Amino acid sequence: MDELSLIERLVAIGWKGSRAVIQGPGDDAAVLRGGIAISTDLMVEGVHFSFDWIAPAEAGFRAGAAALSDMAAMGAAPEAVLVSLAVAGDPSLCEELQRGVRRAGDRVGVAVAGGDVSRSPGPAVVDVVAVGRVREPCRRSGAEAGQEVWVSGVLGGAAAAVAAWSAGGRPAPAARERFASPPNRVPLGKALAQRRLARAMIDISDGLVRDAGQVARASGARLRILQDAVPVDTAAGGDLNLALEGGEDYELMFTAPAGKEAAILDLGRELSVRLTRIGSVDAGAGVVLEDGEGGRTAAGRGGYDHFA
Amino acid sequence: MDELSLIERLVAIGWKGSRAVIQGPGDDAAVLRGGIAISTDLMVEGVHFSFDWIAPAEAGFRAGAAALSDMAAMGAAPEAVLVSLAVAGDPSLCEELQRGVRRAGDRVGVAVAGGDVSRSPGPAVVDVVAVGRVREPCRRSGAEAGQEVWVSGVLGGAAAAVAAWSAGGRPAPAARERFASPPNRVPLGKALAQRRLARAMIDISDGLVRDAGQVARASGARLRILQDAVPVDTAAGGDLNLALEGGEDYELMFTAPAGKEAAILDLGRELSVRLTRIGSVDAGAGVVLEDGEGGRTAAGRGGYDHFA
Repeated sequence: MDELSLIERLVAIGWKGSRAVIQGPGDDAAVLRGGIAISTDLMVEGVHFSFDWIAPAEAGFRAGAAALSDMAAMGAAPEAVLVSLAVAGDPSLCEELQRGVRRAGDRVGVAVAGGDVSRSPGPAVVDVVAVGRVREPCRRSGAEAGQEVWVSGVLGGAAAAVAAWSAGGRPAPAARERFASPPNRVPLGKALAQRRLARAMIDISDGLVRDAGQVARASGARLRILQDAVPVDTAAGGDLNLALEGGEDYELMFTAPAGKEAAILDLGRELSVRLTRIGSVDAGAGVVLEDGEGGRTAAGRGGYDHFA
Repeated sequence: MDELSLIERLVAIGWKGSRAVIQGPGDDAAVLRGGIAISTDLMVEGVHFSFDWIAPAEAGFRAGAAALSDMAAMGAAPEAVLVSLAVAGDPSLCEELQRGVRRAGDRVGVAVAGGDVSRSPGPAVVDVVAVGRVREPCRRSGAEAGQEVWVSGVLGGAAAAVAAWSAGGRPAPAARERFASPPNRVPLGKALAQRRLARAMIDISDGLVRDAGQVARASGARLRILQDAVPVDTAAGGDLNLALEGGEDYELMFTAPAGKEAAILDLGRELSVRLTRIGSVDAGAGVVLEDGEGGRTAAGRGGYDHFA
């Protein structure tokens, strides 16, 4: 069973509809009546990170940044995080993890308002809950034929670091930095939602193609991505595959109505974030990758799968 | 470093005050402006439970019930839970854990609105986030001299089960049931808060004495507990120590103004919950246990410590 199938089964078991919840499972965050967005992001030592790769405070920062990225992807303004920690051995490790989460919170002006802590007989575990407010949540399901597909930042750097570590080597400093310190896209996500520039949005945690597939499925539309337009991180050494499939970037992918290019590029300049048009939405299903010669690849469920 | 000291350090690292948060760390749940209560409850295989003790769906139920117990202790009405799961090996274990959390949600009318899932290279981990609404949160800090101390249900049964398992034996069925299926005190907690009967409240997860100590510390008052008044679960075999120190009960301890005995007992009858007056609040600090002969014991930081 792959991870997406497992998630579908967990949703079927856990979700039954609720009057209190206006957005249930299947998006970057759940949303309660009154616009309370809430999500949880679990990171496990030996699966999502290793202390041979990054220091504990960096792991905490990354976990906090990943949780807050879910707020960005909904267009929500974060108000607090809560942190559950489990560690083997020295409890001072908890302090370093907490320090990192706090720094990620500081970057968007929120504090650690609660949490839980336990000993672990195995790996360290960091589970960060982010909670925020959003008037009009930007869901994954808003993509429609005629819209354009955009992405923030550059892709593939964090995955290049993981690839280097996994091969027993050491990543270039720039790639390591991409992994240890995901970008803060909260101001961007909020502005895109408030200005109605983004109509569907997701954060790229599992890889561009895979996350585009989530938007395609939720929207009942097809996303066409122009390979040559995808902004590959120089830290990824020009490896397009890392940018398409690597994941870990925590950049935002969104769809926008046609004709909004100037407004989107203005916003990017305002926030000093590179925004790149990488494709379009049409009728159909799934994700199609197009190369410069008109070749097409139907892209399936690529990207990182915790259970594969 | 013991667990309470560690938590104090984590709070000092993570918390800096926040205009968005009206109750920060140090209570059963954080509360955002507008009365959004949110808490997270982490359970780790080999620390909080063992699959030699209970089935996966029971572990999920227990984790869900424990998280919802935090809502009860604030007097909040739960609206949703989110679940983070990590398991080694067969991902179908996730489904059983999720099924259990769902059942705990069903008991109070909320669904699993989101979550996260990962492989674990070690123990199974279940982290349940509960979110709800509360107009006037019932904090740990509301105890004042002259109030009376009350407890719901009977205590010590769940700890008797843990004691039996830890000694290599099998608990009596009634004790096992107390551990596997914590009570639902959400209706009680809500009613106690709404009717202004409870002025300080906490759920008993770490043991009556230890949790009473939390209320004493938060309130700047002393709690005097009459040992003979504490309702010991018959499943605990009459062992007062299990009732005082055992924990795991997820009953509510609260302080109430004097003269409310009739209203409290009426509420108990209405909800079919045994409510027992076990002591009083006076000026001072800490917890004092009194026996029938007038003997007194200053009780310290008893109860379960994950890092001791």
